[in-house]
Formats: sequence, C-alpha cells, structure tokens
Amino acid sequence: MTRRTTIDPDSVVLNPQKFIQKERANSKIKVDQVNTFLESSPERRALTHTLIDQIVNDPVLKTDTDYYDATKLQEREVTAKKIARLASYMEHDIKTVRKHFRGTDLMEDLQANDPDKAAPLTNKDISIFDKRLSLVANIDPQLGTRVGVHLGLFGNCIKGNGTDEQIRYWLQERGATLMKGIYGCFAMTELGHGSNVAQLQTKAVYDKQTDAFIIDTPDLTATKWWIGGAAHSATHATVYARLIVEGKDYGVKTFVIPLRDPSTFQLLPGISIGDIGAKMGRDGIDNGWIQFRNVVIPREFMLSRFTKVIRSPDGSVTVKTEPQLDQISGYSALLSGRVNMVMDSFRFGSKFATIAVRYAVGRQQFAPKKGMSETQLIDYPLHQYRVLPQLCVPYLVSPVAFKLMDSYYSTLDELYKASSSADKAALITVSKKLKNLFIDSASLKATNTWLIATLIDELRQTCGGHGYSQYNGFGKGYDDWVVQCTWEGDNNVLSLTSAKSILKKFVDSATKGRFDAQLDVDSFSYLKPRYIGSVISGETKSSLQELGDYTEVWSITLVKLLAHIGTLVEKSRSIDSVSKLLVLVSKFHALRCMLKTYYEKLNSSSDSHISDEITRESLWNVYKLFSLYFIDKHSGEFQQFKIFTADQISRVVQPQLLALLPIVRRDCISLTDSFELPDAMLNAPIGYFDGDIYHNYFNEVCRNNPAEADGAGKPPYHAELSTMLDRGFEFDQKLGGAATTETLSKLNK
Amino acid sequence: MTRRTTIDPDSVVLNPQKFIQKERANSKIKVDQVNTFLESSPERRALTHTLIDQIVNDPVLKTDTDYYDATKLQEREVTAKKIARLASYMEHDIKTVRKHFRGTDLMEDLQANDPDKAAPLTNKDISIFDKRLSLVANIDPQLGTRVGVHLGLFGNCIKGNGTDEQIRYWLQERGATLMKGIYGCFAMTELGHGSNVAQLQTKAVYDKQTDAFIIDTPDLTATKWWIGGAAHSATHATVYARLIVEGKDYGVKTFVIPLRDPSTFQLLPGISIGDIGAKMGRDGIDNGWIQFRNVVIPREFMLSRFTKVIRSPDGSVTVKTEPQLDQISGYSALLSGRVNMVMDSFRFGSKFATIAVRYAVGRQQFAPKKGMSETQLIDYPLHQYRVLPQLCVPYLVSPVAFKLMDSYYSTLDELYKASSSADKAALITVSKKLKNLFIDSASLKATNTWLIATLIDELRQTCGGHGYSQYNGFGKGYDDWVVQCTWEGDNNVLSLTSAKSILKKFVDSATKGRFDAQLDVDSFSYLKPRYIGSVISGETKSSLQELGDYTEVWSITLVKLLAHIGTLVEKSRSIDSVSKLLVLVSKFHALRCMLKTYYEKLNSSSDSHISDEITRESLWNVYKLFSLYFIDKHSGEFQQFKIFTADQISRVVQPQLLALLPIVRRDCISLTDSFELPDAMLNAPIGYFDGDIYHNYFNEVCRNNPAEADGAGKPPYHAELSTMLDRGFEFDQKLGGAATTETLSKLNK
Repeated sequence: MTRRTTIDPDSVVLNPQKFIQKERANSKIKVDQVNTFLESSPERRALTHTLIDQIVNDPVLKTDTDYYDATKLQEREVTAKKIARLASYMEHDIKTVRKHFRGTDLMEDLQANDPDKAAPLTNKDISIFDKRLSLVANIDPQLGTRVGVHLGLFGNCIKGNGTDEQIRYWLQERGATLMKGIYGCFAMTELGHGSNVAQLQTKAVYDKQTDAFIIDTPDLTATKWWIGGAAHSATHATVYARLIVEGKDYGVKTFVIPLRDPSTFQLLPGISIGDIGAKMGRDGIDNGWIQFRNVVIPREFMLSRFTKVIRSPDGSVTVKTEPQLDQISGYSALLSGRVNMVMDSFRFGSKFATIAVRYAVGRQQFAPKKGMSETQLIDYPLHQYRVLPQLCVPYLVSPVAFKLMDSYYSTLDELYKASSSADKAALITVSKKLKNLFIDSASLKATNTWLIATLIDELRQTCGGHGYSQYNGFGKGYDDWVVQCTWEGDNNVLSLTSAKSILKKFVDSATKGRFDAQLDVDSFSYLKPRYIGSVISGETKSSLQELGDYTEVWSITLVKLLAHIGTLVEKSRSIDSVSKLLVLVSKFHALRCMLKTYYEKLNSSSDSHISDEITRESLWNVYKLFSLYFIDKHSGEFQQFKIFTADQISRVVQPQLLALLPIVRRDCISLTDSFELPDAMLNAPIGYFDGDIYHNYFNEVCRNNPAEADGAGKPPYHAELSTMLDRGFEFDQKLGGAATTETLSKLNK
Repeated sequence: MTRRTTIDPDSVVLNPQKFIQKERANSKIKVDQVNTFLESSPERRALTHTLIDQIVNDPVLKTDTDYYDATKLQEREVTAKKIARLASYMEHDIKTVRKHFRGTDLMEDLQANDPDKAAPLTNKDISIFDKRLSLVANIDPQLGTRVGVHLGLFGNCIKGNGTDEQIRYWLQERGATLMKGIYGCFAMTELGHGSNVAQLQTKAVYDKQTDAFIIDTPDLTATKWWIGGAAHSATHATVYARLIVEGKDYGVKTFVIPLRDPSTFQLLPGISIGDIGAKMGRDGIDNGWIQFRNVVIPREFMLSRFTKVIRSPDGSVTVKTEPQLDQISGYSALLSGRVNMVMDSFRFGSKFATIAVRYAVGRQQFAPKKGMSETQLIDYPLHQYRVLPQLCVPYLVSPVAFKLMDSYYSTLDELYKASSSADKAALITVSKKLKNLFIDSASLKATNTWLIATLIDELRQTCGGHGYSQYNGFGKGYDDWVVQCTWEGDNNVLSLTSAKSILKKFVDSATKGRFDAQLDVDSFSYLKPRYIGSVISGETKSSLQELGDYTEVWSITLVKLLAHIGTLVEKSRSIDSVSKLLVLVSKFHALRCMLKTYYEKLNSSSDSHISDEITRESLWNVYKLFSLYFIDKHSGEFQQFKIFTADQISRVVQPQLLALLPIVRRDCISLTDSFELPDAMLNAPIGYFDGDIYHNYFNEVCRNNPAEADGAGKPPYHAELSTMLDRGFEFDQKLGGAATTETLSKLNK
C-alpha cells in the first residue's frame, strides 16, 4: 500500500469507519432479538445462518464482485456449474430432513420408486433445499431462477396437475426433484399471449390411431416464448396446449414433452428451439423459444389429475374433466413463484437497505461552515426522508412473507390430501382457501415487487455516482429485480384481479351482509358488514394515537375507497373505468396486510421473540414510520376520500413523519446490522460491515480492472484513437489534395 | 420462411399491422406540422432530418440490435471507431457553416491560429456538429457522452475559465475542437467529493523555483474518480485542484494537464490511471480514476481568465482573482451538460413513447367474450392512463428544451463579449442572467431526467415481458439514462439549489416588493409582488376552464407552497427541515415552465407552425392531459395547500383526466408518428413503423442468436449439465461406497 491508498486521519476529510463504529457503540438495540424477529423464529433463524454460511463459503456458489464483469456466456457457464453444485446439496438436504446418512442409499431407494424401500418424496423433504434456494437467489438471482423454473414451475406444474402416479414417476423415479435425469422447463407463455393463458394457441390433438397426442405450433405468435431453461438446459418441458379430441377444443391443459437427449443435448425430432438472447437482466438464464412441428407424445404424458382422456377397450374416447379444480390447479404452479417473490422482496430489500444506510452514515458532503468537518449524509433531513422509510420496507415485508409462505404450504397440503382422498367437502373448503390465497399473494406479490423496485432505484440515487458503479450492486440488482414486476403475473393484471375479488367481497358484505367469518376473518376483516357500516356512518374514525391506529387507518381507507368505486361502477356500469382505483385497492390491501401482520407479531410476546423493551420500542417506530410514509405518499387519496383533512395532513401526518425520522435515524445502523447479512451476500463494497467504504470500493475496482497488457491505461484499441488524433489535413496529397486554389485552377484550365 | 414464421390471417389471433394502419388512415392530424412544432422551426426540422439520415445510414455510426449483445470491450472499441468517424464529420460541419470547401484548407488555416487566414472558431462554427452530437447521443448514448466529455466538459471548461489566448491555443491551434491532436477529459469529481466541488482535495502547489505547478493527490479520497475518457482515451485533462501559492490556499481552480503521449498512448510521468470498470450502463465510456504524484506543469497551464498567478520580473508572485465571475465560470462547463440533458429528455422520451404506443395499439390481450377477437391494449382505460400521459411528456419537454438551449447560447455569447471587453456593467447584467439560467436549467434538468426515467420504466412495464428483452431497447435505455439523474449535478442537490434561489426571490418579492421586471418576467412571473398578493388574498382562484388555466394553476400552487414553506422556516429557523418541500418547488417550477412555454408556442400563429385547426386542437389536448395528469399525481399537495378541494379533485380534475384519455387515444399513432423517428433510431423491433411487431421481433432475436456451433439448442457448456443429470449414486464404488450397511459393517469389525 502506497500512501495514495491511505486516508489521512488528520485531514478534514473522510474517515467513514469511525462514524459507523460510533453508531454501533451508541445503539441500545438487541440485534440478536431483531434478527430472530425478522427470521420468524429462533429455529428458522439458525437454519438461515447455517445455509448462508455454507453458500457464501462454497468455492463454486460464492459470488464476488467479478460477477459484475461477466459476459452473458460466462454467466451461463458459471450458472450451470452452480446448478450442478446445488444438485449435490439437494441430496444432502433431503438426507438431512430424513436423518438418513447410512445403511442404504436413500437416493437410490427413492428412484426405485418402491414405498417399501423409502417413503415417497413430499414437500417436507425439500423444505431445507427450498430455503437454500431462496437464499441463493438473493446472492445470484439468475441461479435461483434457473433452478426455480425446474423445481418450482416444472415441478409444481406436475404436482398441481399430475396424478399421484405421474408425480411419482416424473419427479421421483425419473429423478427430477433430485435434479437428476431430467431438467425441466415451463412452456406456458407464447409470443402472442402472456397474461391471457386461456387463449394460448399451441395445439395438442389426440390421435386415436396411435393413442398419442400430436403437439403443434400453428403460427408464429403461438411460438413458446421466454421459456427459462429452454434455450440450452431443459430436457423436458411442461407445455400448456389446447386439448383437442375428436375435433372438440377442451381448452388449455398441460403435457410433459421431452425436448432433448439428456446425454448428448441434441434436440429431439420436431422440436425447434432458439435462444431469446440478451435481456435487461438475468442473462445467466437461457430463456428460449420453442416451436413444435407435429411432435408425438403418448397419451399418458398429459397431466391428468383433473382432466383425463380415457380410452375404452373398444377404442372409443371420452374426456373427463373437473372444471373448477382444473382451473385452480392451473394457477397453482404460479402461486409458488408469487409466494417466493414476497420472500425475495424481504431479502432483496434488506440487502440494498443495508448498503445505502451504511453509505449514508459513512459518507460526508458539505460542511455547515468553512473549516468544520463535513456533514454525514444521514444527518440531512432530506436524506433521512429518502433512506429511512426504505429501511422500514423490508421490516414490514418479513412477517407477511413468512406468514404467506406458511399459509401456502399448509393449504397445499390440504389440497393434496383432499384431492387424493377425493373428499368433496374438503375440496370445496380448500378451494375457497386457495382463492383467498390468490388474492393475498397477487396483491402482495405486485405491491412488494413494486416497492422493492422503487427501493433499489431510490437508494441507488442516494449513493450518488458510486451507486451507478456496477460493483456496488444496485445496477445489476435493479435489472435483475424488475422482471419480478412482470413475470408470473404482470403486476397490473394481478392487482386488478385481486382488487376485483376484494370488490366482490365488499359488495356481498355491504349489500347482502355476506361474510365468511371463518375464512375471511384474517385478511379481510375490514370487510365485515358491521365494520363497513361503522366506517360509512362515521362511527369509526381515523386517528393516529394508538399503535393499532396505524393499521386501522388503512382499513378505513379501503372501505371508503371501495365504497367510492362501488358508486362509480354503479353510475358507469363499467368496471374498466375504475381500474386505476382498483390498482390502489390492491396496493392498500397489501399495505394493510403488512402492517397488520407486523403489528400482531410484534404485539405478541411469544411470536415476536423480543424481550427487550428498548428494542421493541424501536421496532414500533419502524412500524409507525412505514405507515406514515405511505399515508403521506397517498395523501391525495387520504384527503380525497376524507380520511384526513388538509389540516390533519399538515398538522398530524407530516409532523409525525418528520419527527420520527431523527428517532429512527438513531438506530439505523443497528437496524441494518440486524439483517445479519455477511459482506459476501451484499457483494457491494460501499456497504461492507467495517464501513471502510473508500478502501473497500477502491480495492474491488482495482482487483477487477488490472493494468492493461500493453501498459497501464493503454487500451487494446489505441490505434483507433491515435490514428484519429494524428490525422493530417484533407487537402494533403494523400487524400487527393484537389481542392486548393492551385489545384483547382489547374482543373479549370 | 416456413409457415411457423407466418401469422394466420384468418385466426382469431394477432395481426398488429392492420390496427396501426387503421389508426393512420383515420387520423386527421397533420404529422408534418406537428413535427415542425416539435423541432422548433422548419429550418431546424430540415437540419434534424438531414443529420439523422446521415447518421442512421453511415456504415460506422449506425446502430443495430446487435448493439445490445456487445461486451464492454466490444462497446469501447466500436465507440472509438465511431469517435474517429465523428471527427471527420466535425471538419465537414465546420466547413458547411463557413461555406468553405475550396480554395484553402480551412482546417489547416484554423490550426495555424492566424486571424488573417481564418477567423477564430466560435460556437456558431460547431452549431451543426452540436446538433449532430445531440442526435447521435439519442441512438448511442455512450458515444454521445464520450465526445461530449471532450467537447462539452473539457472544451467548455477551457472556454469558461481560459484566457482568449488559452482558448485559442488549446482548442484551435492544438486542434481539440477539431478532435485532433488532443483528446480531453474533465477531472473534477474525486472519490470523496462529488457535489461539494469546493472541498476537492487535489493540490496544485506553485513552485517559485521552477515557475511551475506541482499537482498532487494527497490521499485515497482525493483520487479523481468517474473521469469519463480517463481510463483509455484522454491525452489531456482539465483538472480541478486547490491553488496553493506560498502556503496560501486560494480554493479550487482549473488546470490543463497532459496525461498521455497521443501517439503511443503511454502515460506521462507521475500519472497513475486505472479503469473504473463495469457500470450500470454506458459501458462504452472508459471512466477512469487518476492519481497525480508530483506532476509538474508550467504556470501557463492554469486556466487564467478570472484567477491569475502573476510573476514579476523580480521573482515575486501575486494572485489576482475576480471571485464573483470566477464562481460563475466554474459552473459554466456543467451548464452546457444540463441544457443538453433537457434536450435529451425530449428525444429519449419520444423514442420510448413511440415504441410503447405502437405496441399498445398492435398488441391484443383478453377478449370481452369468448370467440370475439381480443382487445387492443390501448383500449383498456388503465392502459391509456399508463401510456398516454407519458406520450405527452416529450411534447411538453420539446418547446422548453429549445428555448433553454437558445437562451444558453445567447447568454454565453453575452458573457464572452462582456468579459473580453471587460465591460463591468454588462458583466453584472449577464451574471444575473446566468444565475437565472442556473435556476431554470437545474430545475428542468432534475425534473426532466426524473420524468424520463419514470417514463422509460413505466412504459417498459406496459410492454410486458417483451419490454424486458434487451432488443426492444428499454433495458439498456433505462440503464444508460438514469445516470443523468446523478451526474453533472445530483437531481436532489440541484433541486434544492434552484428551490432555495426561488424561495429567496419569493421572500424578496413578498416581504420587500422586490422584483426584477426585466430579468424575471419570463420564468418567474408568478413571483411578481402583485400576483403573490392576489393569490394569498384569494383574488386569483384556481380553475380549469380556459386553456391558460392549466398553466396558471401551477403558478398558484407555487405561490401557496412557497408561502407554506416560508411559514415553516420562520417557525423552525431551519431551511433543511423543509427540504422535502423544496424539491417539490423545483419540480413544480419546471412543470410550470414546460406548460407555459408550450402554451405560448402553440398559442402563437407564427411560432407554432400549426395552421390546421384539428391538429392544433389535438395539441391542446396533449397540453391539458399533461397538466391534469400531474395535478392528479400531486393531488395530495393540491388539496393540502387548498388549491382544489377533495370534491374538485373527484368532480373536476379526475373526470376531466379520464375523459381526455380516449380523446388523446384517437390520435395516439399520429402523435407518435409525428416524432418522425426512423426505425434505425428506435432500434426496437416491437416499435417499428410498419407495426409488424411479431415478425420484426422474432427476426431480430433470430438474427442475433444463430444456432449454436455444436447443434441448435446445444450449449458450449453442455457437459456441465449432462454430467450432473447422468450422475450416479453417492454409495457407488466410484465415490468410495463407504456408507452401505454392508461396507459399514466391515468397518465396524
């Protein structure tokens, strides 16, 4: 180290470490307790840290700043290596769940598909791996997706639509769940259809003669498009295609179709595949397009839990379908993704909040007076306003993310149980639960992926130019993130869908007094007939005095907003005309869910795992700041729908908000440390734990950009530039020199 | 073309061309007139199209979709080639301005630096090239920046701070303006200081013995950072460093420092340079860091228009400085960038609006009823709300961008004239004009670069998954764009600076009746004492009845907002506490400027160049929609500051807004065509003129992703995957096979 890489401790300038150390020394918050709160429970917290520790220290899986310099091909190669590495962790994780490391080879027994040797695979078996994958996705999102498509989309499509035998065959015997033998992709969207799944055009025509389906792409717009893993990795696809039997179109069903020979990776007959190429982010995923040219698959490859093509011994064919369940199952593959994206929102949000808060504390700019040391960014009220509410976002996401995940798994278990036992009553109950889960997950997925897109963007801007450096994570982080707002349900479409269901519940409750006390009591308690009445009559009023008020004000707003929408729809007879307001309903529903879940968790002595009062107090401030920030953001609606008056906004909401900022600021480093993200997970030197911003950043830049081969600062393409700079004059002989007066006069002769 | 690349014209599905053709056939708008309106005048319009035509057809400068697949090194090489190409256009453009193509070699005469041979270079000489560069920057932003740093930052730094002789020497005789001999970079920001220029730490110590400056980087945080062109291209830098003479620190001044030998590109003694590496966007720019280790330059290399180090024959040294002008000139290099960014906002905005509107018209999704054809996205009210106000944004930017540009050049001419003739009175006037220009350009730069960042992001989302494909331009477009929110003045810092000046003007006017009728009448007419009085007294009321009202409502809002801020500051005695509101002042000031300039231009029969009434009507709708959209967006403030009541928002603003959407929708394709952007400038197949969305997109994807060398769909890294899929069981002999019961029992013996 020469002296130009040191920082003069006596200069008036910058020594960020001391500021961050000071914050740590002064904070009275119990970081341990907060992390347990954020990780849901001590057991889950322990698992999180074990897994993170393995991931960031694994020589193949760990991700350094050189990640930000990789080309598309390099990214894809590295991702493939990491997938192979994760495959061995998968075996390890299943054995860990089953506590089975000796005696017999569990994997061999599972693939034997013999219940006497090993019980069939369940969701529980891959619960550790699921969490591992969710954490990996936080470090290397494209890796997460590439495995997530195989297990979460391909796998869940089979689980949701296949018979027990089909599930066992494809996922266990053939090894797909073990990431063996089969690598799957999920061929739903087409070039011409994304959101409108029912209008997909790929055809699956049943051919009686061969007792097989002929899969065909009728025209260009029916080309399967955006299929993750199709370009280079997938050996099989679950394909959404129109079932056509004896000329009749039964709508879109799912089929397992082999694409490639797993050993040679050559495409099978009739399969055309191409690479979708460069994307805004996640270039490590080999998204592809697929066209089928009369590809033949046996009848048994149609996933047949809810729709069956039955061939009688006499050769006649019937189609048996359970439309209601069929529809539900159709979405269940996407449900897993949505639930996971809420968890991703927590983890991504905490990562970028950590980076930006540490930078804001360590960075100084402008002194109040000449000669005084410069002010830390975090001490500017505007900077507090830009950073601290964003820090609160992942705090408010965490409880709802865990709750949604738990509810997803328990509902899925119920569904499998009910559908395997063909218990009709149980099926009806579980299908209602699933519908509620659709509403919550759609609204939470859309709202949270938007919130985090905003968070990354706004926090990048708070880091100034250094936020634009790829090595500080925001650029790739944003590009990788924003696809979450579009895929597996476009956020606007999801918001409309969930809001329309909420509006229907509202109308049922308000006009007919209908309310399912058992099913709707949690997420939809603001839709109780009595509650709606009390809001409309003015009996229930908005205030911000008690902790519960910060949630309830959103319930009141939702009721008033829904009532306003109801009136407009009645007048216009068009639901489309209120769609802008419906998107708000979905947002407000999600914000309320987040606040309510957080409130209930923190309020519970058993669930919160917070025993320290100062810590609890600090977490209540986070809760209040989050609510106030979004009330202020939506002060237009809060005034328009008369939840607050202009004066209440000026005298209550905004002053409370401004007053909270310096209070939350006091604990901001502890609240950041409480995410307990190791540097290797942040992968952004301006945000590392030690706060040595400038050295860390400088060193990473130098490491990734060594001196050029021909001399420091001399580019391989220097000839392009020196030729230009050294060029002569146009009228020189070498260029013909025709235009001087002398030459021209010769030509004039 | 096989049939899988055709679209079945009889199918219920998608044929986007016919929709776009239909819109064109039905629209009554005169595209020609609108384009003249947007391009400011017929003459300017003609020049724009001549230049665009040359650029998109130039074999080196044209940019295809393969641009989106280039690696960082490829981007840099290609950019270097394009720079060399632009250098010959520069010569051509100067000769065009001077109408000098024969007789003598103008370039040779200019470099001879002899006024008898050729008049000195002026801004007028490079006016065509400036426009060419601005248009190139719209197609290839990194190329624009790389040349812009040389001419706009390096060049303007010399023009703003150098003596006439220095300007003539560096820019003309040495050839910098001709992009010859010298390639410059602008070494202002350091690792530790960006916005706070006054605290830069690089030292320039005058050494009496050698009559030279010793330039030195005192510590790591003083490393010059983010310097565009430094890593690989620049031969010289204008360096911001602290002038220290005989131990006294005179603050930050500017120096020309040679970095590299232009022919060998080797670094000169004492210069350390490194590559900053990967960025969120614009990887074709070779941003670098620079450290100086006692680098010696002659005294004459300090730019000395306003600060001079004078050495007497007796060897004594004095420093002469004109502090007020010095400060102004310090910022003038950045002024050019800000003015250009407003123009970029117009051009970037029109590009992405074109793509998204054409896609919204051509794309269908979901049918109202089974069997009916699917609805065009643009016919959904929510989609109209998402797309059409964004289409209005570039319309509202254009007039103010041209006006600001004109005002910049005329003020600069005044400045040079006044400072060359040392006319004190003229200097005082022009310095006031410059200050106003700082306010307007800061507020417009910040607001418009934010508006366009939002526009690109929101419009990308309206294109669903296809918006995430790199080939449709949004990804790289966004990544390249957002640095505009940070560089050459961080948007928040700029907003605060301009708002504080506006607040000062407000206070002067409201409390002391001070208002400069001559200088402030245009941008600051809402700050006239009488006007402020009439708003505060309620005499001037908000309404939305006449066209002028859509601008005036913003004037009223500004006055009320400023009055509110005034009260808060009086109470708190802290300007920092209202900084969130000050950012709003800057935004509202910019929105008002945009509306006012647009209103005045369209209202003028001579300036608007619109003779057709239907066309004018349509442009008034654009104006109204823009204003209403932002009133609604800011309905929180409009209600809080009592510009409109909740009922007015519900009954006037929002219904007017919703009613305008389908009206503007009728002309949306014509309003898009009116930008007259050729496909080669859009470089995004879903937005091409013919509307053949799916073919264009599919063909570009296929062209950029040809079949893999080892077989279609077989990745070069297939072994990684096939080895994983074919792997055996852990207990096999090859892995030691130690854990079977049989083996374990042997070990147990």
